[in-house]
Amino acid sequence: MATRRSTNRRVVRQDDDLARPNDGAARPAKPAKTQQSPPRAVIEHVLPQVDCGRRPAKATVGDLLAIEADAFADGHDLLRCEVRYRHDTDTKWSTSLMTSLGNDHWRAMVPIESLGRYRFLVSAKVDRFATWSRDLKARASAGQDLGIELLIGAQLIEQAAKKARGTDRLMLSTISVGLRSATGGLETKMPEATLSWAALGATEVGQARKESLGDVVYSEKLGRFLGGLSEGTATTSDTFAIMVDPAKARFSTWYEMFPRSTSSTPDVHGTFADVRDKLGYVEKMGFDVLYLPPVHPIGRTGRKGPEGAVSAGTADPGSPWAIGASEGGHKAIHPALGTLEDFHALIKDAAVRGIDVAMDLAFQVSPDHPWVSEHPDWFRHRPDGTIRHAENPPKSYEDIYPLDFDTPDWLGLWTELLEVVRYWIAQGIRVFRVDNPHTKPFAFWEWLLTTVKTEAPEVIFLSEAFTRPRVMEQLAKIGFSQSYTYFTWRVSKWELESYFNELSHSDLAAYLRPNLWPNTPDILSEELQSGDRAAFISRFVLAATLGSSYGIYGPAFELQEHLARSPGSEEYAHSEKYQVRSWDRDSRKSLASFIGLVNKIRREHPALQFNDTLKFHAVDNEQIIAYSKSRPNGPSAEDVVVIVVNLDHSYPQSGWVELDLASLGVDWRRPYVMHDLLTDAHYSWEGGRNFVSLDPSNVPCHIFSLHQPAIRRSPVEGAR
Amino acid sequence: MATRRSTNRRVVRQDDDLARPNDGAARPAKPAKTQQSPPRAVIEHVLPQVDCGRRPAKATVGDLLAIEADAFADGHDLLRCEVRYRHDTDTKWSTSLMTSLGNDHWRAMVPIESLGRYRFLVSAKVDRFATWSRDLKARASAGQDLGIELLIGAQLIEQAAKKARGTDRLMLSTISVGLRSATGGLETKMPEATLSWAALGATEVGQARKESLGDVVYSEKLGRFLGGLSEGTATTSDTFAIMVDPAKARFSTWYEMFPRSTSSTPDVHGTFADVRDKLGYVEKMGFDVLYLPPVHPIGRTGRKGPEGAVSAGTADPGSPWAIGASEGGHKAIHPALGTLEDFHALIKDAAVRGIDVAMDLAFQVSPDHPWVSEHPDWFRHRPDGTIRHAENPPKSYEDIYPLDFDTPDWLGLWTELLEVVRYWIAQGIRVFRVDNPHTKPFAFWEWLLTTVKTEAPEVIFLSEAFTRPRVMEQLAKIGFSQSYTYFTWRVSKWELESYFNELSHSDLAAYLRPNLWPNTPDILSEELQSGDRAAFISRFVLAATLGSSYGIYGPAFELQEHLARSPGSEEYAHSEKYQVRSWDRDSRKSLASFIGLVNKIRREHPALQFNDTLKFHAVDNEQIIAYSKSRPNGPSAEDVVVIVVNLDHSYPQSGWVELDLASLGVDWRRPYVMHDLLTDAHYSWEGGRNFVSLDPSNVPCHIFSLHQPAIRRSPVEGAR
Repeated sequence: MATRRSTNRRVVRQDDDLARPNDGAARPAKPAKTQQSPPRAVIEHVLPQVDCGRRPAKATVGDLLAIEADAFADGHDLLRCEVRYRHDTDTKWSTSLMTSLGNDHWRAMVPIESLGRYRFLVSAKVDRFATWSRDLKARASAGQDLGIELLIGAQLIEQAAKKARGTDRLMLSTISVGLRSATGGLETKMPEATLSWAALGATEVGQARKESLGDVVYSEKLGRFLGGLSEGTATTSDTFAIMVDPAKARFSTWYEMFPRSTSSTPDVHGTFADVRDKLGYVEKMGFDVLYLPPVHPIGRTGRKGPEGAVSAGTADPGSPWAIGASEGGHKAIHPALGTLEDFHALIKDAAVRGIDVAMDLAFQVSPDHPWVSEHPDWFRHRPDGTIRHAENPPKSYEDIYPLDFDTPDWLGLWTELLEVVRYWIAQGIRVFRVDNPHTKPFAFWEWLLTTVKTEAPEVIFLSEAFTRPRVMEQLAKIGFSQSYTYFTWRVSKWELESYFNELSHSDLAAYLRPNLWPNTPDILSEELQSGDRAAFISRFVLAATLGSSYGIYGPAFELQEHLARSPGSEEYAHSEKYQVRSWDRDSRKSLASFIGLVNKIRREHPALQFNDTLKFHAVDNEQIIAYSKSRPNGPSAEDVVVIVVNLDHSYPQSGWVELDLASLGVDWRRPYVMHDLLTDAHYSWEGGRNFVSLDPSNVPCHIFSLHQPAIRRSPVEGAR
Repeated sequence: MATRRSTNRRVVRQDDDLARPNDGAARPAKPAKTQQSPPRAVIEHVLPQVDCGRRPAKATVGDLLAIEADAFADGHDLLRCEVRYRHDTDTKWSTSLMTSLGNDHWRAMVPIESLGRYRFLVSAKVDRFATWSRDLKARASAGQDLGIELLIGAQLIEQAAKKARGTDRLMLSTISVGLRSATGGLETKMPEATLSWAALGATEVGQARKESLGDVVYSEKLGRFLGGLSEGTATTSDTFAIMVDPAKARFSTWYEMFPRSTSSTPDVHGTFADVRDKLGYVEKMGFDVLYLPPVHPIGRTGRKGPEGAVSAGTADPGSPWAIGASEGGHKAIHPALGTLEDFHALIKDAAVRGIDVAMDLAFQVSPDHPWVSEHPDWFRHRPDGTIRHAENPPKSYEDIYPLDFDTPDWLGLWTELLEVVRYWIAQGIRVFRVDNPHTKPFAFWEWLLTTVKTEAPEVIFLSEAFTRPRVMEQLAKIGFSQSYTYFTWRVSKWELESYFNELSHSDLAAYLRPNLWPNTPDILSEELQSGDRAAFISRFVLAATLGSSYGIYGPAFELQEHLARSPGSEEYAHSEKYQVRSWDRDSRKSLASFIGLVNKIRREHPALQFNDTLKFHAVDNEQIIAYSKSRPNGPSAEDVVVIVVNLDHSYPQSGWVELDLASLGVDWRRPYVMHDLLTDAHYSWEGGRNFVSLDPSNVPCHIFSLHQPAIRRSPVEGAR
C-alpha cells in the first residue's frame, strides 16, 4: 500500500472514473452526435515534460514540484485549471488547483512523497461562476442595474447546489435566496448562521460572519468551491510521468578512491579492510558516496603496465577496467582486495557513517573473462576467426573485448548483465557509476534501468559519458539518475555561465541531473596541471556550489596531484589506473579540511542542495564570477547563498558585483548582511553594487549567506 | 490522381509496406522474442513539428522545405538518415537522403509541389559500409595492415550485392572481388568496364573510369548506394503532417476598402460597379487581395450613427458588421451595393487583374437577422427572456447578438455557418478575412477550416485576432492561413527586432504566417495620428518588407488620414464603419505611387516574399533599424535585400550600419554595390561598417539590393 498521503492543504477528489485524457482537439469534419458541444479550453506546454511525454521527468522524494501549463479558452471567460496526480500505488487521484500567473500560464505545486512513478495531467474548463462574479463587479463599478445579473447568479448557484451535500447545500441555497431577494443591492447583509465557511472546508470559521452579499459573491473561497461543482466539459491534457528517486539522486557528494592504494604500507596492495580504515577520513571530509573503480579480477592477457605501457611486468596489477580472469568475472571480487564478506563489512561500515559505496559497472571484458569461453557468440569475430578487440581506428585496445549487444543471443547477454546488477544490489549496493554507457545501445540501458528501478526504485545510476551533447542527454532521458558533464572543461566565466544556464534553465533540467567532477582518474584537467593551490580551491568550490551533486577523485585531488603523463595529455603521471600508489593523506598541503568545511556548508544550506534557482550576477571583471542559489519553491527566496570566485589562479582580482536584489527578495533600500561561511567574516552591503577583492594566495572565493534583518518596529509599536 | 511528381534528383522508393512508425524507444522490461536486437539509432526533435505532431506545420506550393532532425546511435558508428514523404494523393512514399550538419543534426530539402496534406517521417539506421569505409581510411593513414579489413569490406559488399539487380549486382561483385584479391593495396586499379557509375543511376558516366580501389571504396556515391542496401533495423520517427496552401498564403498584398465609399459622387452610397471602376487604381498600387468589409444587409435595430453614436438617423447606413436585416443574412448582398450578379462581375474583373476579392466572415448578427426568429435557440437568453446582446462588461453592444456556439443545437448552428462559407466559395471567393475568431470556440474553427480545406485546399483564411499571444497562436495552429499581428503597436527598434525575431525564428514560424497592418478601420495607431508623411512611409515600408504578407486600409492610408475620434482613441474620426466617405484619390499628397513602387519591388525580389531569412543588423543609432532578407533555401544567399529605416519621423538620423557580411554571403575583402531600389541610386560599400543618413523630409528609408560582382579574371586567364 502507498505510504504517500496528500497534504491536508490539497483538495482530494474521489475521481475513480477519470476520463481518458485527450489533447483538447476537436475531431474535425465529424462532430460526435452528443448533446454537449466540444470543450472550450485548450491546454498546452504542460511542464515538466520530456520528449512530448514519451519519457518521464525526474523528481526526488520531498520535492514540492511545480507543474505548469498554458490554458485558455476563446472569448473572455475565466478558467478553472487543476492538476490531477497519483503515485502508481495510489488508488485515487489527488487534485491540486492551479493558480494563474498571467499570460494564460498556470501553476500548481505538488508534493512528491514516494519513490517510483507518479502520473499527472492538467484539466481545465470554463468557470461560469468566476466569470459571472468578475463581470458582476465590473457592472457594479459602472453603476449598472444588476437585477437580472443577480438572478443569473442565483441560477448558477442553484445548479451547483444540486451537486452539493449537507451544510454545503444549505449554505448555497441561502446565498441563492439572498441573490434572488437582494433589494439593498450587494450591500445586503447575509444571514449569519448559514454562512459558516466551515461548510467550505476552511478553518477560519470565525472570520466570515456578518458578511454582505458582495463579500460573499466576490469571495475567492466561494468561487473555488463553486468552480469545482460547475457544469461544462473539461479539457484534459495528456498524462505525463514523473520518476521519483531518493533525495541523494539530487544532492550527493562523491569521493572516488582506488581501494588498492589504501594500504598504510607503501607499495602493498590495499584491501577492503584498508578501505574501512579510511572511512573516517572520507566521512570527515563530508562525502556521502564512496565510489570504487571495478573490484573484480583483472585479466592477464594484454595487461597494461605502469603509465599505460603495452606490456606489464609480473608484479603490475593491471587496469581494473580490464575485467575478468580465471578467478571470475563481473560477479567476482579481486582476491587481493579480500572476500565478499570483507566487501559486505565495508558496505555496512560505510552505511553507519551515512556513506553509500558506489560500484563501477563497466560492461566490457578482458580476454580472460569467463564469458569469452562460455559465450563466444557474445563477441564479434573477424573473418580470420579472432575476436574483435576494442578499437577506435586507428587506436586499438588489445586488453579489452567489447560485448556485441547485437549478437543473435542479445537477450541472453542483456539478461546476464541485468543479473550482474541484481547481484550487487543483493549484496547491498544502491549506487552505481556506469562506465562509458554511450558505447552500448540506448535500448539496452532503457530496458535494464527500467527493470531495475521497478524492482528497486531507490537505486541511483551515474552515467559516465563524456561525448556529444545529444548522446549524453539521451542517456539521462532513458533513465540514468545522474550524469557527468562538461564542467571539467568549462573554465572561463562565459563558458561557465552559458553551460550552467543551459543545465539549470533549459529543457535539460527536467531530466538531466549534473554531477560535476573537477578531476577523474582519466582527466587531469589543464587547469589543475598548473599545480596552483588556488586552481584546486576554485575548481572545487565551483563544483561544490554550481552543482548540488559533485565528486572528486582523491586523494589525488586533495593532495593537489598535478603531474601529467606527458605535455598536452590529460592522463595523470603514475596513474593509479595501472599501478598501486601510496598517498600521504596527512600532508600539510592537503585540502581535506577545506573540503570538509565546504561540504558542511552544503549540508547546512538547502540552497546548495538544488540547482533550480541558480542565477548569475554581473561583475565588471571577467576573472570574477558571481552567482546565487536559494531554497526553491518557497513562498519567497529562502536561504540565499551567494558565491563569488576568482577564476584567475595567479593574481588578485577585484571588481563590483551587481546583485539582482529583487530576484533574491532583498529590499534594495536597506542594508543586508553577507556572512562569509568560509571565513566567518560578516560584511554589511547596501544596494546592488558592492566591491569584492579575492587573492589567490589566500582563499580565492566567498561563499556568502545573505541575510537582511527584518524592519525593526519603533519602540512605541514594539511596546504594544 | 496526383499531379505531383518527385524530381529526378530524389530517390524514389517502392515502399508500400512502410512499417508503422514508432519513436525508436525500446519497450522496457519485456524485450520481444525476435532474432533482431532493437534498433540502435535514436531520432529526436524532428522539424517542422507543431505541438508534438498534433497539428500540421504549414508550407506553400513551390517551397523547398527543410526537414531536420537530431539522429544518433551509441558508439562511433555512422548513420544513414532519410526523410520519407508522400502527398495524401500519392500511392508511394518518396525518399530523400539527409545530410549531416554536425552535432548529430541532419537535414533534407523536400520539394513541395501540391496543395493539401503531405506526411513525412525520418528514418535512421547504422550504416555499416560507411563506418567501415571511414575506419579503413583511418587505418590506412596510420599505415596499419588492411588485409582483414578488406575481407570484411568484401563481405559487406557481397551481402549488399544479394539485394542488387542487373548491372548493379555485377558492379558490386567486381568491387568485392577486387577487395578480396587486392595485393597492391588501395592503389590497385579497378577493371574499367564494370565501374561505370551509370549502374548507380548517376549521369556522369565518363568520370569514373580507371579508378583505384581506394577511389572506389571511399566514394560517397558508392557509400550512398550501399547504405540503401545495408542490413540492420531502422528507427523511424513519428509521422508528421504538412498542410500546403497556395503561394498567396505566404506572399500577399492586401488592400481593404469600403465598397460604399467608392462612388465618384460625394455622399452617394457606392456600389459593386463603383468598386469595379476602382480596380485599376488598386492594381496600379500593386495589390493582389482586395478585402471588402461585410457586404450583407445591415440591421436597423440599435443601428449606430456617425462616430459610433448609439442611435442613427434614417439616412445613416450603420455598421456593416451588424449583419442581417429583413433583406437577408450572411448569404445575402446589401441591396445598395448591387446584386449577386454585380458581385460576380466584380470577382471576375478583379481576377483578370490578378486580384482576389476577400470576404469578411463575421459570425455575429444584428437583432434583425433572419436567424433570430428562425433559430432563437442559437442565442443565449437571460432570465427575463431577452436575448443577451454582445458585451464585455461593463461595455455593451446593443446592435449585435453573439451566436451561442454551445447551444444544444450547436451542430445545426455550426453546419449553417459552414454552409455560409461554402456558399461564398461557390460564388468564386477564395480568400476570407475572419472577424474576431477568438470569440468563437477553437473546436468550431478547427472543424470548419479542416472541412473547407479538405474540399477546397486553395482557400485562404486570415485570422483577425488582436488578443493574447497563446490565443492568437492557437488560431494559427488549428488552421488559419494567415494572422494579424501586434506589428501595429511595435514601434521602437527593440520592439520590432524582438517581435520579428520571434515571428521568424521561433516555433511560431512553422505554423503562424504574419500579415502586417499599419492601420485598420478599427486602429488608427498613435504613430500615424501625428499625420507625418514620414510616419506613413516608414510604417508602410516596415510592413511591406518585414512581412511577406501585409495590408493597408485605404484610401485612409495612402491619403494619410490621421484624425482620431478623440484624444487617446485609436478610432478614426468620421469612421467609415458608420458613414459613407468620399475620398480624393487623386490628391497630390497621396502615397499611391510610392506604394506602387514598393509593391513592384516586392514582386521583383523573391527575398521579400519570404520571412525565413530575416536578419537584423546592428546600427549605432537606436532610431535607425536595419535588416536583410534573401531568397531562402538556395545553395547560397541569393537576392539579398537590405532595408534601412529611420524610425524618427521628425528629425534626420544617421549612423553606422554593421552588416553581418558572412551571413549574406558577401566577401568582406571586396567592395559590393548597394542599389537603392526606391531612388535607383547606387552606392559602393566596403567591409561591414558603412554610414547611412536618412531624412524624414525626403524618403526616410532605403531598400537596397545588395550585389557583389564576381572576381574578374586577369586578362591572361580570361583569354584561355
